[in-house]
Amino acid sequence: MSVSLVAEHSAETDAAPAEHLDETHAAALVSWVPSARGHAEFPIQNLPFGVFSPHGQAPRGGVAIGDVILDLAALAASGLAGDELAEVTAAAAAPRLNGFLALGSDARRRLRARLSALLREGAPERASVERMLHRAGDCRMGLPAQIGDYTDFYAGIQHAINIGTLLRPDNPLLPNYKHVPIGYHGRASSIVPTGSAVRRPNGQRKRPDESAPSFGPCRNLDYELELGVWIGPGNALGTPIGIDEAQEHVAGLCLLNDWSARDVQAWEYQPLGPFLAKDFATTISPWIVTAEALAPFRVAQAPRPEGDPAPLPYLQTSRPDRPAAYDITLDVLLQSEAMREQGLAPHRLSRGTTRDLYWTVAQLIAHHSCNGCNLQPGDLFGTGTISGRAPDSFGSLMEISRGGREPLTLPSGETRTYLADGDEIIMRASASREGFTTIGFGECRGRILPALS
Amino acid sequence: MSVSLVAEHSAETDAAPAEHLDETHAAALVSWVPSARGHAEFPIQNLPFGVFSPHGQAPRGGVAIGDVILDLAALAASGLAGDELAEVTAAAAAPRLNGFLALGSDARRRLRARLSALLREGAPERASVERMLHRAGDCRMGLPAQIGDYTDFYAGIQHAINIGTLLRPDNPLLPNYKHVPIGYHGRASSIVPTGSAVRRPNGQRKRPDESAPSFGPCRNLDYELELGVWIGPGNALGTPIGIDEAQEHVAGLCLLNDWSARDVQAWEYQPLGPFLAKDFATTISPWIVTAEALAPFRVAQAPRPEGDPAPLPYLQTSRPDRPAAYDITLDVLLQSEAMREQGLAPHRLSRGTTRDLYWTVAQLIAHHSCNGCNLQPGDLFGTGTISGRAPDSFGSLMEISRGGREPLTLPSGETRTYLADGDEIIMRASASREGFTTIGFGECRGRILPALS
Repeated sequence: MSVSLVAEHSAETDAAPAEHLDETHAAALVSWVPSARGHAEFPIQNLPFGVFSPHGQAPRGGVAIGDVILDLAALAASGLAGDELAEVTAAAAAPRLNGFLALGSDARRRLRARLSALLREGAPERASVERMLHRAGDCRMGLPAQIGDYTDFYAGIQHAINIGTLLRPDNPLLPNYKHVPIGYHGRASSIVPTGSAVRRPNGQRKRPDESAPSFGPCRNLDYELELGVWIGPGNALGTPIGIDEAQEHVAGLCLLNDWSARDVQAWEYQPLGPFLAKDFATTISPWIVTAEALAPFRVAQAPRPEGDPAPLPYLQTSRPDRPAAYDITLDVLLQSEAMREQGLAPHRLSRGTTRDLYWTVAQLIAHHSCNGCNLQPGDLFGTGTISGRAPDSFGSLMEISRGGREPLTLPSGETRTYLADGDEIIMRASASREGFTTIGFGECRGRILPALS
Repeated sequence: MSVSLVAEHSAETDAAPAEHLDETHAAALVSWVPSARGHAEFPIQNLPFGVFSPHGQAPRGGVAIGDVILDLAALAASGLAGDELAEVTAAAAAPRLNGFLALGSDARRRLRARLSALLREGAPERASVERMLHRAGDCRMGLPAQIGDYTDFYAGIQHAINIGTLLRPDNPLLPNYKHVPIGYHGRASSIVPTGSAVRRPNGQRKRPDESAPSFGPCRNLDYELELGVWIGPGNALGTPIGIDEAQEHVAGLCLLNDWSARDVQAWEYQPLGPFLAKDFATTISPWIVTAEALAPFRVAQAPRPEGDPAPLPYLQTSRPDRPAAYDITLDVLLQSEAMREQGLAPHRLSRGTTRDLYWTVAQLIAHHSCNGCNLQPGDLFGTGTISGRAPDSFGSLMEISRGGREPLTLPSGETRTYLADGDEIIMRASASREGFTTIGFGECRGRILPALS
């Protein structure tokens, strides 16, 4: 079945090329894991990698399939992955996946194919593999890798315009934006997995009407909806990654909430950029949705609007036949304490798409390393906030509330400009395409605790 | 002897308090290591920790004493450090000192006392310890720890004024400067030890007279003279470090060269701060000069100029009797390729002092963690460029050449506004005080290689 499927789609101009698709992507593929059938996020076509602790045991690598997690440490011990994959499986079974990410796409593809074979209906190994499954609800998810460096970009042009309009109505987009994939270094130590509570930070704030700053709880606490990018092999210091090779260094993607203290940011950020406004916490979804699983959801980059400058040559691929962008839909939901008490479901604040990013992930990688800066396995990028043109696609409260001037109303009747204590922000994402099985990312969730006094 | 020495100095208002001084600081102390006597940098009063590879062997922890390095792995194996110090010695002997830094000041102080006893004249263990020494010239120095996160501050107010004057002549210092210890997150992966070559980065540059940016070798390559701060135990996410406890988290100091691509920086840095202009390389001196070794060189923080705002309470110590600043003198020297060929010695570009920093290291730590951001053992801070008021104390070429407008002349007759290929920048530092033995930092050295084409 996979052959005809591949042929059909590679004929489209913006679809994934045949070289990236194999039978693991076939929509007809079904797992013997009952909950995986029709699972909205983790069908057998996804097979994302993560690190989990089952029932209070030590952390190890695992793969999400339906509502359960396949224990890769158990798989490695069993030898069922086969001798050729023993090393790869061991790396994917480790409590930190940096070594696995370092192996690159070929190793991931081979392990993925084996996992797909073991988990599909009719697999003779079913009885053995079944004993390696843990109910996801009984497991605690950790960070999938030790994050060496975290870089946050600003590739959502509509977000840059929205924020710029609030700060500089006459000149929302700075002159460098369409030439430079703007980014800055973030804090790696405070990146936490979904479900971690986020304490409202204290900090220096000064409103325009105040003559001096004061120290206290952030008044304008916000989230930012971003895609996270896990870096694979990387490069040696001094040796750039060319744009045509950049995609080989994408191990996979996740969701990322770049919590932001807007009042702290406004006061501190000149001239060296955001610092304490961002580094108190960054929440990510715990699964690395691999570049291989996402192959069917690659699309051509949207053409630049008329009049925009062409990217400089080091940001231009020589392989325009390879779709450079992703088609991923992302949702942000909020559930306040009152909503939880009243049994009200989380309320969707926005829905965005990665098609709205001005720069591709490959361009971000080529830019980041163009000066010789070394990227390492387990580094994490944030794309920057993903916002569309319509208000229901704005990826932060600062944009939705127009700088705090226009409150939104929640189903509980409460209003919000920025986040209140007890609010929980939930991000979800999925990739869909006709002829393929939809895959998801799992949640990126965090609840606000009151500031320390 | 140490008792009278301590009593004498603690009577001065700005000297180190008695609690921080012990017999390891006594000027009369002499080592049986011949080269340590009168050594300008590594007398027995210093005993800095680092990681070295002797004669091509595996890296391990060591201590500099005169022109040799004491192999702590050999010391740990010998048992000579004593049972009570076995764990501490093992941590200090590891190929990465993060575990040692995590132990904090008490462990460092105890190991320091033991090392001082083993290395001082008359030590009965001399013959055994002598076999654990390696000529420093035969060893390769590595980074002393795995740097989790690197933060660069901007605490040199004269540097901020000098740079601000070039960019905004009417308003050199931004309104937040005297309230907020300005800082930003830097790149950890590209921090290299002294002696590593630094390749001129390529990047996007756009001069004001150019209509569009181009990609190519940095035209305005610069250094920045900074002090590096190694973080000790650190804090859990969400739990700030109070200003009065902050000094306990300083494991030690080093020299730091924050290489800067000024033309790249000018074009990229709005609105999120420096990125590729800084992250292609940062060079540090390889020895952690401990907080304990530096105790005699603590001085009272210079009073703020009349009219400056008082720091907010979270940045004000309740122990003004404890000297909060360091008195360290730092030099920058340049040797061009022509100078090397002509046998000309490196030429001093500037001499600065840490007394010129507007914020103390304790204030930087308290600020960084005030929002709950977690600092970890082996994190590194840069203070920001250390410049004084006089041009011969300016800590970067941008300041010395006034934005590239006033070239300086080298002893070879060459001129420089910014760095040329083949130029080597050498930084040195020392701490001196009457009644105490001067200690030094070792070199922070890096030579510029031509850009990749």
